[in-house]
Amino acid sequence: MATRIEIYDTTLRDGAQGPGIKFSSDDQIQVVRALDDLGVLYIEGGQPGSNPKAVELFERTRDLDLKQAKMAAFGSTRNPKSAVEDDANLKALLSAKTEIVTIFAKSSPTHATEILRVSLEENLVLVEESVKYLRENGVRVFLDAEHFFDGYFEDNEYALAVIEKGFEAGAECLILCETNGGRLPHEIAEATRAAVARLPQAPIGIHTHNDSGCAVANTLAAIREGAMHVQGTINGYGERTGNVDLCSVIPNLQLKMGYDVVTPEQLGTLAHTAHFVAELANMTPRDHQPFVGRDAFTHKGGMHADAVRKQKASYEHINPELVGNRTHIAVSEVSGRSSLTQKAEEFGITLDRDTPETKQILQRVKELENDGYEFEGADASLELIMLQATGKHRSFFETVGFHVRVNNIGDKQPAISEATVKLRFPDGTESHTVAEGDGPVDALNVALRRALETPYPEIADVRLEDYKVRILDGNLATRAKTRVLIESSDDDASWYTVGVSENIITASYLALLDSIEYKLLQTRGC
Amino acid sequence: MATRIEIYDTTLRDGAQGPGIKFSSDDQIQVVRALDDLGVLYIEGGQPGSNPKAVELFERTRDLDLKQAKMAAFGSTRNPKSAVEDDANLKALLSAKTEIVTIFAKSSPTHATEILRVSLEENLVLVEESVKYLRENGVRVFLDAEHFFDGYFEDNEYALAVIEKGFEAGAECLILCETNGGRLPHEIAEATRAAVARLPQAPIGIHTHNDSGCAVANTLAAIREGAMHVQGTINGYGERTGNVDLCSVIPNLQLKMGYDVVTPEQLGTLAHTAHFVAELANMTPRDHQPFVGRDAFTHKGGMHADAVRKQKASYEHINPELVGNRTHIAVSEVSGRSSLTQKAEEFGITLDRDTPETKQILQRVKELENDGYEFEGADASLELIMLQATGKHRSFFETVGFHVRVNNIGDKQPAISEATVKLRFPDGTESHTVAEGDGPVDALNVALRRALETPYPEIADVRLEDYKVRILDGNLATRAKTRVLIESSDDDASWYTVGVSENIITASYLALLDSIEYKLLQTRGC
Repeated sequence: MATRIEIYDTTLRDGAQGPGIKFSSDDQIQVVRALDDLGVLYIEGGQPGSNPKAVELFERTRDLDLKQAKMAAFGSTRNPKSAVEDDANLKALLSAKTEIVTIFAKSSPTHATEILRVSLEENLVLVEESVKYLRENGVRVFLDAEHFFDGYFEDNEYALAVIEKGFEAGAECLILCETNGGRLPHEIAEATRAAVARLPQAPIGIHTHNDSGCAVANTLAAIREGAMHVQGTINGYGERTGNVDLCSVIPNLQLKMGYDVVTPEQLGTLAHTAHFVAELANMTPRDHQPFVGRDAFTHKGGMHADAVRKQKASYEHINPELVGNRTHIAVSEVSGRSSLTQKAEEFGITLDRDTPETKQILQRVKELENDGYEFEGADASLELIMLQATGKHRSFFETVGFHVRVNNIGDKQPAISEATVKLRFPDGTESHTVAEGDGPVDALNVALRRALETPYPEIADVRLEDYKVRILDGNLATRAKTRVLIESSDDDASWYTVGVSENIITASYLALLDSIEYKLLQTRGC
Repeated sequence: MATRIEIYDTTLRDGAQGPGIKFSSDDQIQVVRALDDLGVLYIEGGQPGSNPKAVELFERTRDLDLKQAKMAAFGSTRNPKSAVEDDANLKALLSAKTEIVTIFAKSSPTHATEILRVSLEENLVLVEESVKYLRENGVRVFLDAEHFFDGYFEDNEYALAVIEKGFEAGAECLILCETNGGRLPHEIAEATRAAVARLPQAPIGIHTHNDSGCAVANTLAAIREGAMHVQGTINGYGERTGNVDLCSVIPNLQLKMGYDVVTPEQLGTLAHTAHFVAELANMTPRDHQPFVGRDAFTHKGGMHADAVRKQKASYEHINPELVGNRTHIAVSEVSGRSSLTQKAEEFGITLDRDTPETKQILQRVKELENDGYEFEGADASLELIMLQATGKHRSFFETVGFHVRVNNIGDKQPAISEATVKLRFPDGTESHTVAEGDGPVDALNVALRRALETPYPEIADVRLEDYKVRILDGNLATRAKTRVLIESSDDDASWYTVGVSENIITASYLALLDSIEYKLLQTRGC
């Protein structure tokens, strides 16, 4: 049987320190459930001593029926000026009523004396008393040895003495924290080896940050030396360059190093979990993220895409389905016809390499890409171009014109946004509608739907799920081109469309048109 | 003297395979100059055999007066069906007239027999003949051993035989390529060790991708085993999860492992080079990128920011100035007053921790952040809030109203965008202006400047450098809030402002107002 590695997630604590990361109270509960589903064993939920949101989280999670995950409250060793039984922080940790409490302790002599301003001896007493006190009050204690690696290379003996003291006092797991994130794998290996040799009976954990770009490798190096507990965050969220990304650590450990981390079914939900947490954190998913990113298995160059067709494993380090991802063929200016025909196959369109249609599509895609279009994230718009070129397309309406007006009184009042849309249908009738909205694009969207609802009532089922704006030549400032990507869905599927214009209103309109046209072709055919 | 490591950049070849990465011909020349300034020794410029842009690049770079960088053309060993002297690809490589030609060869038995469809023996002949032919034609040859690591673990002997054959035929450097990017550092170390042992006289290179999240560590592992040549890209651009990021490799090698890579002055331009190349590639810089990202040395949590004040090295793995970056204190909902007062210090505003002004500013920042504002990238807007609270601010004008209109005829014609702005000045006079523009925001910008040009002619010096739009609740689709960030500059400085609204027009107007107000406070005081 493979050795078991414990995953301890700190997305809601260390991850939430990342610039731009914000979780509402409801988001936090959703993250907890997602982590439990993924097979995470421990979930760190913040510092009850300083953060009211953390207190609320622990209260709310007490009633959740989690499968295996256990919540951990986070705080520090006692204040050097408090008696242990009067320490407000330790009391707050206990009041969180979690099964596990994780406390951090200084393990670098410099940090103990210069930042915490205690003697080396006093610091050991803080560790001992704090761990004992928490144990006596009935919680399981994990000890985060902060700056362990910097401490180790400053004074081997002292850093080891801190974790030894914690273990003797009753801490169940000693976590070696690479707090500044700048160490390299060979250093992590050396210090972890020493820790494991010093405390062969103690479970050792590893907590890394990515400041040297080596967070994943640093974690793996510690595991190879005998650590069996990993702290990290989903998507590598965290301060500065982030914490180690569990979405890389988990598949590396399980698929490449043969450890037992989560079940294969749970691993198969990894990409979904990554995207779901990104959505809750309101962060744009990183397309190039290892294992779970949209482009992690995207093939673009004509040669590679050709080779992938020949032999899937030839340019893929794992089968993407194992982590819930998939192979993706990107159509782009450097790609050849084989990418395009493979993409057509994905859409269920037969496209031969050498027909005039294929040539025409390639030509059209290149022209649009020169104009700033990007089809890598807008499959439905690309499919529409293919359907048009292969005669599998018809026009459901044409735009006679539209008009948008935004009126502001002063600069504090909400603006009034109004749009009108005039459409002409194949039978010669016209519709002319007007709507207000939350902003000009919303007004336009509402007016367009009103204009279509009588002839095409199924448009009411289309939901706009996401709306993204990318300024293409940011340095042209307000004269720059704008690319709008829209995600739409109905009860059966999601689809992505794109529009580009110097005018954000027009770009949005074009992306909305593609979305609606795509839907109508699905429901009514050509 | 420290051992020298050669940097071979492939941003313009392998990097340009990355999704969304596009360099115009002029961009390519600017990238070449930037890499030369950074101290890169070799610059790979693409495949002349298949890419007309690469041919143009080699022509244009022939006349550049580069300091030390040499251009390398890239291609493959000869076509199995061509005689070496008739091979079109090899001819194209020579016609590029570069000092160096890099060719890739199959070094995995499976890839040779299944993808290239030649026998193992034939493949060795391809390597030998191709290298010899190029050498006889007067170029220096680098051999990229594609899939070397997968090949090594499939058949040690064969992978080593391929690089040995290349070396015997005259290749000057044998580059071990981790083409699929999924290997882990201990595997890289083992195979590199074997290569160095087999060819102790040969310079060995390393080329990694980030599919396992270990590209940087994999490169460092090979260097520790004796490789002395690194291939990578600026910002880690490249297919799938990207190539190894030279912006992490260079400082790790030089600052942490003691190798001689570039001069300290060149290293001090690393962050600038990273951002400059991102701009040319039209990619948003990654804020959390190690060493060079905006947040690589950003401190947010109140505790950490406090500690950084106490002792800079305590939470920074290197001095950020060594790589041209700087410490940044982010103001955010979890930060305490000490962050805010430190930020004020950056602005030259004295703010005591415990005054009502400080409390008021903190309160205001929190309110705005709840509304979707983000000051981490909008220092000038934050400074305006501080100036207001400390009485160092005055009003230069107020907005009576504005109006934006976008008119489209059909959906193919460019829209007409018109804006009107009505302002009232402190002396009671008003201006009411109208302008057209490339889109509604541009029209608004032009109208606003026209309204201000008589009373405040210095506004003509303000350039809008960048304009970014972020949709805050993308899943509210077109009803989502919009955050607009604007970068402005004049001849002396750049400044960043922010506006948030459900209406993109209003959000843009608010960010423009802050930009103008900031400029006027600089020129006219309060």
